[in-house]
Amino acid sequence: MAHGSGGKATQTLIEAVFLDAFRNPALEPLEDSAVVEVGTERLALTTDSYVVSPIFFPGGDIGDLAVNGTVNDLSVSGARPLYLSAGFVLEEGFPVADLRRVTASMARAAATAGVGVVTGDTKVVQRGKADGCYVTTAGVGLLDRPARLGVAHARPGDTVIVSGPIGEHGVTIMLARGELDIEADLISDTAPLNGLVATLLDACPGGVRCMRDATRGGVATILNEIARASGVAVVVDEDAVPVRPAVRGACELLGIDPLYVACEGRMVVVVDGPSAGAALDALRGHPLGGEAEIVGRVRDDPPGLVLLRTTFGGTRIVDMLVGDPLPRIC
Amino acid sequence: MAHGSGGKATQTLIEAVFLDAFRNPALEPLEDSAVVEVGTERLALTTDSYVVSPIFFPGGDIGDLAVNGTVNDLSVSGARPLYLSAGFVLEEGFPVADLRRVTASMARAAATAGVGVVTGDTKVVQRGKADGCYVTTAGVGLLDRPARLGVAHARPGDTVIVSGPIGEHGVTIMLARGELDIEADLISDTAPLNGLVATLLDACPGGVRCMRDATRGGVATILNEIARASGVAVVVDEDAVPVRPAVRGACELLGIDPLYVACEGRMVVVVDGPSAGAALDALRGHPLGGEAEIVGRVRDDPPGLVLLRTTFGGTRIVDMLVGDPLPRIC
Repeated sequence: MAHGSGGKATQTLIEAVFLDAFRNPALEPLEDSAVVEVGTERLALTTDSYVVSPIFFPGGDIGDLAVNGTVNDLSVSGARPLYLSAGFVLEEGFPVADLRRVTASMARAAATAGVGVVTGDTKVVQRGKADGCYVTTAGVGLLDRPARLGVAHARPGDTVIVSGPIGEHGVTIMLARGELDIEADLISDTAPLNGLVATLLDACPGGVRCMRDATRGGVATILNEIARASGVAVVVDEDAVPVRPAVRGACELLGIDPLYVACEGRMVVVVDGPSAGAALDALRGHPLGGEAEIVGRVRDDPPGLVLLRTTFGGTRIVDMLVGDPLPRIC
Repeated sequence: MAHGSGGKATQTLIEAVFLDAFRNPALEPLEDSAVVEVGTERLALTTDSYVVSPIFFPGGDIGDLAVNGTVNDLSVSGARPLYLSAGFVLEEGFPVADLRRVTASMARAAATAGVGVVTGDTKVVQRGKADGCYVTTAGVGLLDRPARLGVAHARPGDTVIVSGPIGEHGVTIMLARGELDIEADLISDTAPLNGLVATLLDACPGGVRCMRDATRGGVATILNEIARASGVAVVVDEDAVPVRPAVRGACELLGIDPLYVACEGRMVVVVDGPSAGAALDALRGHPLGGEAEIVGRVRDDPPGLVLLRTTFGGTRIVDMLVGDPLPRIC
């Protein structure tokens, strides 16, 4: 199960199996989207499979999650999301009413993000060969801005921003399963980030180094990817990371760190030092970034590591996610 | 299960649920690929989910099937296939050796077709929540030819060609399940059709009305889609349809009609009357079209129907596939 967590085992699997088999220049950066040339245009192409359980949860369902996730993977690459495809694997007996609810939710999410779901496919498997409904979305976006973004672009002196409170999606899913005797007034943060990204890129042309939406593996895993790819240290101030009390409380009860819990509508942004103020202002001026915070900075040493300055004044290394505390959160 | 068969129930599902939810000009023609404008370019975008059982079968596996299927959906729309994405849903415990075999097969198929698998995703679900491995591929192609193709473009006087013997993939999968006490020396016809399509379009610029790869639902379902979308009658000569003896024998034993059995490397082509000879020659000059045959023609009456002139001299209506004699063949 850990191979699907988005953390260390996933990275090992990707490197050992997928990169090995498909090695090509577009795949190799292992960004959320591939950048490809089609005719005279530069496009971003991305895909994600969704197996979230339960399918319906407070604040969303597998449908808007899939649309927003693909919109976000395109957005953080700097692309303008345009068109989506959707492939469904349905378990025999999955209620048509539920399918209608999922597709209606996808259509609403697509309209909100301003993208079209233009092609699709449906397969049905026997009872017991799936879990209701799995959705795989792919998306195409147009890279029509000059910005060149990437996890390898962080430099010492850069500032690290998180666009809002973290961990709400992951904790919401966990509680929605009803296996834990915890109740909290939480909903998933699933949302399309293309508007927020456009606001940021308009405000700081040339100042943004990279953006990543913090899904599986959480903020900690994204920061590790940035530190490794850029050969820099990322130093995070624990007290600065926005976490709602309900998320913090649930994480404490469960013994997990909110830094590893998935969001579906939050992103980590690295900007150069001089752009930090403008970037923060731009994010906070958008409805989806009102609680953005500067959480850390980039320095040169120790390269490849993420350090956390804790509330108690210590410093510890924050590794990528190992194992999977919350399987099937997306 | 019939909702995933590619036949009548699938069409009902698509019209009632997906088209209703996502209605937009790119989706509405319900072609295998959507045609979209990105920047200054016209692109084709398509997706398919693969749930074939067994995953490995004579002549291929779920990996090359997925790559070829997506390449073919792009090709028959007239697009030059360029880039693919791949989303994997793996069942906990699926052997890494099998995953390597699938990805190696995908990489070989991609190299053969001249496309790159540039982005992907992997999710893992618990044991009993999938069946080994499901793959969803999406693909982007460039529409850089003037040809405007579509199932609504057939006109009375047109000629209908099938690019090779039909039903081999479907019968191979059925026999590979080992549930029937039939043995036959058959392998799947899975193959990338982009080279064959390019040869045809080069030979008959302006003469090709539409192409469709005959997958789920078989040739009969494709012909019905053409007849309905174009408001024409398609008259097929049963004796002219190429079917290998092993496929015919297996179908007779099972009481199914080869016209409904899936191929994964054959296409139905409609060309205008004057182009019929050149089209047939072009197809037969390519390794994947050596056994192409003219199987019928288009006339104006009765609109929307497919008529079969049988071996015994009678004529009967051939409907779309109803029910699913062969679930999970792709």
